[in-house]
Amino acid sequence: MYDMTIQLRTDSGKCLYEQIYEHIRQEIREGKLLAGERLPSTRSLAEYLQVARSTVDYAYDQLLSEGYIEARPYRGYFVCPLENLFQLETEDEYFLNISDLEGRPSLLSGREDCLYDFSPNGIDMTGFPFGVWKRITKNILNDGNSELFAQGEPQGDYDLRLTISRYLHASRGVNCTPEQIIVGAGNDYLLMLLEKILGRHVRIAMENPTYKRAYHIFQSFAYEIVTVDTDKHGMIVSKLAQQNARAAYVMPSHQFPTGAVMSIGRRAELLRWANGAKDRYLIEDDYDSEFRYRGKPIPSLQSTDKNGKVIYMGTFSKAIAPAIRVSYMVLPKVLLERYFRECYFYSCTVSRIDQRILNEFIRDGYFERHLNKMRKRYRAKHDLLLECLQPFERQFAISGEDAGLHLLLHAKQPRAEEELIGSAAEHGVRVYGLSDSFVAETPERGTVLLGFGALRDEEIVEGIGHLKDAWL
Amino acid sequence: MYDMTIQLRTDSGKCLYEQIYEHIRQEIREGKLLAGERLPSTRSLAEYLQVARSTVDYAYDQLLSEGYIEARPYRGYFVCPLENLFQLETEDEYFLNISDLEGRPSLLSGREDCLYDFSPNGIDMTGFPFGVWKRITKNILNDGNSELFAQGEPQGDYDLRLTISRYLHASRGVNCTPEQIIVGAGNDYLLMLLEKILGRHVRIAMENPTYKRAYHIFQSFAYEIVTVDTDKHGMIVSKLAQQNARAAYVMPSHQFPTGAVMSIGRRAELLRWANGAKDRYLIEDDYDSEFRYRGKPIPSLQSTDKNGKVIYMGTFSKAIAPAIRVSYMVLPKVLLERYFRECYFYSCTVSRIDQRILNEFIRDGYFERHLNKMRKRYRAKHDLLLECLQPFERQFAISGEDAGLHLLLHAKQPRAEEELIGSAAEHGVRVYGLSDSFVAETPERGTVLLGFGALRDEEIVEGIGHLKDAWL
Repeated sequence: MYDMTIQLRTDSGKCLYEQIYEHIRQEIREGKLLAGERLPSTRSLAEYLQVARSTVDYAYDQLLSEGYIEARPYRGYFVCPLENLFQLETEDEYFLNISDLEGRPSLLSGREDCLYDFSPNGIDMTGFPFGVWKRITKNILNDGNSELFAQGEPQGDYDLRLTISRYLHASRGVNCTPEQIIVGAGNDYLLMLLEKILGRHVRIAMENPTYKRAYHIFQSFAYEIVTVDTDKHGMIVSKLAQQNARAAYVMPSHQFPTGAVMSIGRRAELLRWANGAKDRYLIEDDYDSEFRYRGKPIPSLQSTDKNGKVIYMGTFSKAIAPAIRVSYMVLPKVLLERYFRECYFYSCTVSRIDQRILNEFIRDGYFERHLNKMRKRYRAKHDLLLECLQPFERQFAISGEDAGLHLLLHAKQPRAEEELIGSAAEHGVRVYGLSDSFVAETPERGTVLLGFGALRDEEIVEGIGHLKDAWL
Repeated sequence: MYDMTIQLRTDSGKCLYEQIYEHIRQEIREGKLLAGERLPSTRSLAEYLQVARSTVDYAYDQLLSEGYIEARPYRGYFVCPLENLFQLETEDEYFLNISDLEGRPSLLSGREDCLYDFSPNGIDMTGFPFGVWKRITKNILNDGNSELFAQGEPQGDYDLRLTISRYLHASRGVNCTPEQIIVGAGNDYLLMLLEKILGRHVRIAMENPTYKRAYHIFQSFAYEIVTVDTDKHGMIVSKLAQQNARAAYVMPSHQFPTGAVMSIGRRAELLRWANGAKDRYLIEDDYDSEFRYRGKPIPSLQSTDKNGKVIYMGTFSKAIAPAIRVSYMVLPKVLLERYFRECYFYSCTVSRIDQRILNEFIRDGYFERHLNKMRKRYRAKHDLLLECLQPFERQFAISGEDAGLHLLLHAKQPRAEEELIGSAAEHGVRVYGLSDSFVAETPERGTVLLGFGALRDEEIVEGIGHLKDAWL
């Protein structure tokens, strides 16, 4: 066992896990840790370094995924022999790419590797009714229904689609039959299916800034992406009309990252635009419509669409858990026919057991209760954060505070975003730059995102306290 | 409650569930069953008609999925109001498409809707260790590890990839590190990812006949598909060489549908072909290599590949259960770099809980035990089937009997495939035509596939007895 002493600095701007990861990687590269050597267990190293065990876990995960060390069941972690050490030429680039993974979900979100991580992707899992979930799972497995292990319907099991259609109708005004719903393992996959439905060479309009992951995905389809300016009501439709786009990707309920809620008037304009040509569509990503703090909930864009122009997408990642991997897409009937024609051979990507668990969780009212609880919790955190931010109001403007799990702080005087992020990191606080979400020109003014979903009350208070030291 | 009397015929060539489905659909269309009317429960209708409950289940499923009826929790099945009855213009085409879904997995496979269904997609779930699976699931959920509900690594969790890499090395000689493995929800999804890695405009070579689902998927990528003739050793490489293809999709361990096992010499030739150009690849679909009855197991093509030319794909659908929805793809290192560059933002499509269950199931030896048991069972069924087929040998040649869960019967005298299938159906036996798997010219000679995976011994004996009446 290698006795590992690592000088950890809390004032370096580097997260603890990164420091541990880099130290061990260095030791392996320099031959100070030899192939076959056993690393200390995460528990003992965490105790030794006086850090959270998850911090060490995450450093080891990173080393594992890069092939520096390997895990041997029941024995521990061992340094890989050099010939097994797979050298990526672009290794640093890869690491960069991953840390670079801005947009909503992120590999690094929700981890305790920084003192205070205001990730906009973090969600609060402490309120999740694990007990109920376990019980439903157990009951389903106890049914001993071997049907569950057989192949299901390509679109997803009918019962789940029925339950989702009812939920969407009740909560979001979405008008659809279960036949129009496609269940899939994540929005990314559903967008891949949508590519097969819409076809190649689609010119697609996006807001700027926008949800970067969707942008990357459309890029990987080689779609021609055009950006359209926005004002406080949302995408400016007169500018959209000049772009000759075939589809527009929008988040009317709560734009990411700006947090803007699209006005009713703008929605009507958007629908008029879509009605202006035969094969023109709006992709409505309603990713976190469940959490809204001010004003009445505005129904989905889909609910006012009379002509089958809206492709509605949603997910259970935010409202239940990221690992659930269940998203859904509601297709207008004309596209549904194309789905049947072009995609009938793609089998469903969600296991039937998971579909059944989720179905019962929603159908039997647990989901609604969970949402109500989380809405309350998130509202409390949101209000607390706003309160803590009062001292900032002279120097910063706040926006995007009506809904969702993050808000934005805009420096009133020109201040570089990097400077804001860097000085926050020096004070142990991780904040996220708005510029990561820009896909066209980026404005000068420094703006950061503050997510509060995963933080405890005292972390919000303390974290903002440190930010005050850093910025004011 | 509607009192439903349906004349079921066992000699009509139509499956029972289809007769029930068509009867009810007709009643609804003609207004004899009115909107809001409650249908009998599946249990009571099954008792009344003296059929298996699953037969009624399946008829109702079909009506549900087409929107003729709806399920109301705790209340039963009701006829949909007409305005909710979504009329697909291509409804019949859709239904055709689905029944048409030959190839390995199929919506209709493994159902008890025919007396004897020799589906090549059927697998035997009665030997599955549900108890173990349940226990692992329960333990994992009891761990209360909320990490499991957080977002995992895009490629799949490292532990599972490590376990898969070890399993593949031990059982198939596959050489890879866990870093090279991408875990995904089904082969279809992994092929979609592969499209992003290989890019557009790929000219791909396939055998004829081949696995039709893969063919449809490549078609949906707008790949240029060329077919290459085969002989008893597999794809004829001299003919492949004339095609200027960039990739070839092959199933060397057990070709679907022919059941051929590619010879060692032919494998070496294929690899030489792939080595002949820089960006040329072989896609090895090793979908059911676990079950082999004659000769020594031949290692995977990937195991003899020294130059990173083989993309290896496998699935747990056959060896565990179709609903598991876990497949994996092993990328050569040069393509892995492209994956990191082009696909890093696609999140994993398999839930972490499922990944963890599967990991423990394999790691702790249950998978191996299960495979050993199933190998024995399938071998017994396979031997029994061959024995039952002895009376056919004067008129039919048998092939593809060395491995897998189906074999082929070729009429020695010209007999139309439809005639064989039709007369079998009249005797209550469903067999599958080889012509469904052809993607280019189809030979005249009648050939049918007989799958035995899902059938019980007595069903094999009785079913083949009926076939004898039908064909000899």
